[in-house]
Amino acid sequence: MNKLVSSVKQAIIDSGLKDGMTVSFHHHLRNGDHVLNMVMEAIAELGIKDLTVNASSLFNVHRPLIDHIRNGVVTTILTDYMAAELGSFISAGGMKNPVQFRTHGGRPRDIENGSTPIDVAFIAAPASDAMGNCTGKLGRSACGSLGYAIPDAANARFTVVITDDLRPYPLVCRSIPETDVDEVVVVDSIGDPAGIVSGTTKITRDPVGLSMAMTAVDVIKGSGLLKDGFSFQTGAGGASLAAAKFLKDVMLKDGVHGSFGLGGITGYMVDMLREGCFESLMDVQCFDLKAVESIRTDPRHSEISATHYASPGAKSAVVDSLDVVILGATQIDLDFNINVHTDSDGRIMGGSGGHSDTAAGAKLAMIIAPLSRARLPIVTDRVNCISTPGSTVDVLVTQKGVAVNPKDEELRLRLKDAGVKLVDIHELKEMAERTSGVPAKPALGSRVVADVIYRDGTVIDHIMNVLER
Amino acid sequence: MNKLVSSVKQAIIDSGLKDGMTVSFHHHLRNGDHVLNMVMEAIAELGIKDLTVNASSLFNVHRPLIDHIRNGVVTTILTDYMAAELGSFISAGGMKNPVQFRTHGGRPRDIENGSTPIDVAFIAAPASDAMGNCTGKLGRSACGSLGYAIPDAANARFTVVITDDLRPYPLVCRSIPETDVDEVVVVDSIGDPAGIVSGTTKITRDPVGLSMAMTAVDVIKGSGLLKDGFSFQTGAGGASLAAAKFLKDVMLKDGVHGSFGLGGITGYMVDMLREGCFESLMDVQCFDLKAVESIRTDPRHSEISATHYASPGAKSAVVDSLDVVILGATQIDLDFNINVHTDSDGRIMGGSGGHSDTAAGAKLAMIIAPLSRARLPIVTDRVNCISTPGSTVDVLVTQKGVAVNPKDEELRLRLKDAGVKLVDIHELKEMAERTSGVPAKPALGSRVVADVIYRDGTVIDHIMNVLER
Repeated sequence: MNKLVSSVKQAIIDSGLKDGMTVSFHHHLRNGDHVLNMVMEAIAELGIKDLTVNASSLFNVHRPLIDHIRNGVVTTILTDYMAAELGSFISAGGMKNPVQFRTHGGRPRDIENGSTPIDVAFIAAPASDAMGNCTGKLGRSACGSLGYAIPDAANARFTVVITDDLRPYPLVCRSIPETDVDEVVVVDSIGDPAGIVSGTTKITRDPVGLSMAMTAVDVIKGSGLLKDGFSFQTGAGGASLAAAKFLKDVMLKDGVHGSFGLGGITGYMVDMLREGCFESLMDVQCFDLKAVESIRTDPRHSEISATHYASPGAKSAVVDSLDVVILGATQIDLDFNINVHTDSDGRIMGGSGGHSDTAAGAKLAMIIAPLSRARLPIVTDRVNCISTPGSTVDVLVTQKGVAVNPKDEELRLRLKDAGVKLVDIHELKEMAERTSGVPAKPALGSRVVADVIYRDGTVIDHIMNVLER
Repeated sequence: MNKLVSSVKQAIIDSGLKDGMTVSFHHHLRNGDHVLNMVMEAIAELGIKDLTVNASSLFNVHRPLIDHIRNGVVTTILTDYMAAELGSFISAGGMKNPVQFRTHGGRPRDIENGSTPIDVAFIAAPASDAMGNCTGKLGRSACGSLGYAIPDAANARFTVVITDDLRPYPLVCRSIPETDVDEVVVVDSIGDPAGIVSGTTKITRDPVGLSMAMTAVDVIKGSGLLKDGFSFQTGAGGASLAAAKFLKDVMLKDGVHGSFGLGGITGYMVDMLREGCFESLMDVQCFDLKAVESIRTDPRHSEISATHYASPGAKSAVVDSLDVVILGATQIDLDFNINVHTDSDGRIMGGSGGHSDTAAGAKLAMIIAPLSRARLPIVTDRVNCISTPGSTVDVLVTQKGVAVNPKDEELRLRLKDAGVKLVDIHELKEMAERTSGVPAKPALGSRVVADVIYRDGTVIDHIMNVLER
């Protein structure tokens, strides 16, 4: 007995997928993913229509979804992040039903509490046995953690594992157990390794980025949180990585023994683990090959589910124990609200991911952003879209100084004592506008093309269609 | 923020436990467990009554339950195994509601499908952090796998971790994640290490046992299943362990590379892993210190949940991929039905545990039993209680020969070709009766004191009260 079936199409037929149902995907193969397109093509060929796609993130590689939307195969999208190609199509009004944006914590919460049930989950698995015990740590398409896929597999009515590396039973190194898997399909390739993980993630060489990174570390030190037991998350952007690098140097120099690094994990976090800055890494997604190698070989580098990472529906999640997170922004406003969903024209080109989950959980939620990008101010009077509410953001680090959220008076005093250059966010906005001008408001229509659903389940903003200029 | 509370009593109060609710326990601390008694005493002191106790197994150390039953604190028991002291009390009619016996696979199935909901689960955790990430692998009360506790923690409305070894957050080596845990209580001692695991489990020295063990290995060889990819489970009884030892010798001599060993794991199975008989061990419970040491240090030795072990409600379980299981019996009848619940007087002194799950799953389900024990025949015309239906049992190995279930004609021919000494089960029964006499039927009353619920959910037998003689 095993669960192997001959093709993706056969698995779809066996799943009983019908018009109007929901299929789900996870994004660990990132812009190298072949699985979503392969499955959606087979679904389209089978003539199934009116589907909801619940994907933890959507990248530019998923542009064929545009055709499936046009053809009525897909009529609703739930996701935590959407790259610019699909985003532009949605912003132009390409889809009737609004996209539902959630966060990496809100998505598993709503899957587990039954508010967004999944009929069929498709798991892109770099290695699996014939009963569906599968992992992201092995195989030529290895992506490391499969954290976002774990709640999908556990809660879907029918779960299909798609792999290009079939291993003998039992695959002990499993992210998802056979108990959650109905069928296994072996295909030639689940993804393009070059798009799955970058060989190395690189820190910025830009002097503005480096200067902000150094300031970020000064803020962390000044906050009083950088002591034994310290925990930390940062993104994979150039300035954030530079901050991790500088932070490592400070921790080693000062002999600070942190507890854990969290998040999407890069090689820089692996270096911090190996050099003793942290006792462990809690990993929901690997960003580069060094992280994949580490999660495969180092027991201190631990795979966690999306639920364990960030779900507000869990009895606790790791974000609840986080000290400091460094986050980016496409816009930040005078109330410290953050936009990571749309560009300055109002077009969708991102999403919260774990942004608002970590901001809500961390003791210190820090935004690093330059005052302007491509001659467009980042600091503005009102963000085009509220991705993360300002009430959960503590501090903005720019190349022109650091603005502390007025709610954090104690932090402001600490940073002042530490000699950090503090500025009011209104001043930063004026500086930005002096150099880049007052940005034109995006030309928006009256149709809601996406709802932004905060991690507590409330709709905190709507994204409107963008008019052609 | 953490989940520590000052006492078991406080955790019970916080849980909202009320009259008529259900509490659950797991049995990895076996006869050394302090947690069930500690919790039930606190519950009794709080004046809470009419509770259902859902425990994966109950040992003699849990004899204080008798008082809690007498006092009305506990009115229903759900379990997979009950040792003789509590068993005798139940058999004497000590409890109004019949005990519900399930199997190690049926229990998690019914917890997960909602038919036996748990209000408060108490997890005896040899090590935990303050958020409830916990494990059985570390600490002075280390018991290895926490497999039976995993479904309880995941499905209970409120989960309390009780530990005597608080570790820094995050405890990476976790069996149960913080996502499932509401509160953590630190106590002086969760158990007596001497009762938790034996220092070493010992093979039999009895010549009858050794002879049966050798025959068992002949049967496995003769069955044709002993080839590369072979998988195996055996119990911790003396003859079963001897069979494992002899099987290891044969596998090494013949160069058979098996896939996995399953079950409650002993040091003998660890030896088989280390010497190359298996690629992995799938472990729901550790029986001795060598197994605990192995699961802590060897990544091939894998902790599995009770669901993954044996649940018929899972999309598959490891028992479904098992080749051979060696099981014991207190009685076996002419239809190959097995009794492991009651003794020859009809008194409860055991339970299925994983007996019927592995018998149903394995390609070859073998019973090893002597014809008689303490001058009482084991082979009988009708078992006093059907624990495992004969339709799932393939072969009985005794010191006087091997009886094959008539349903397995192909197996009979194979064993005959292999020169195994075959006898009809009727002959074995007659031999047993010639040496030990025809056993008196137990003196039973008319009250049902326990229902035996098979892994498919059907009640396959009732256990009646035993009359005083």
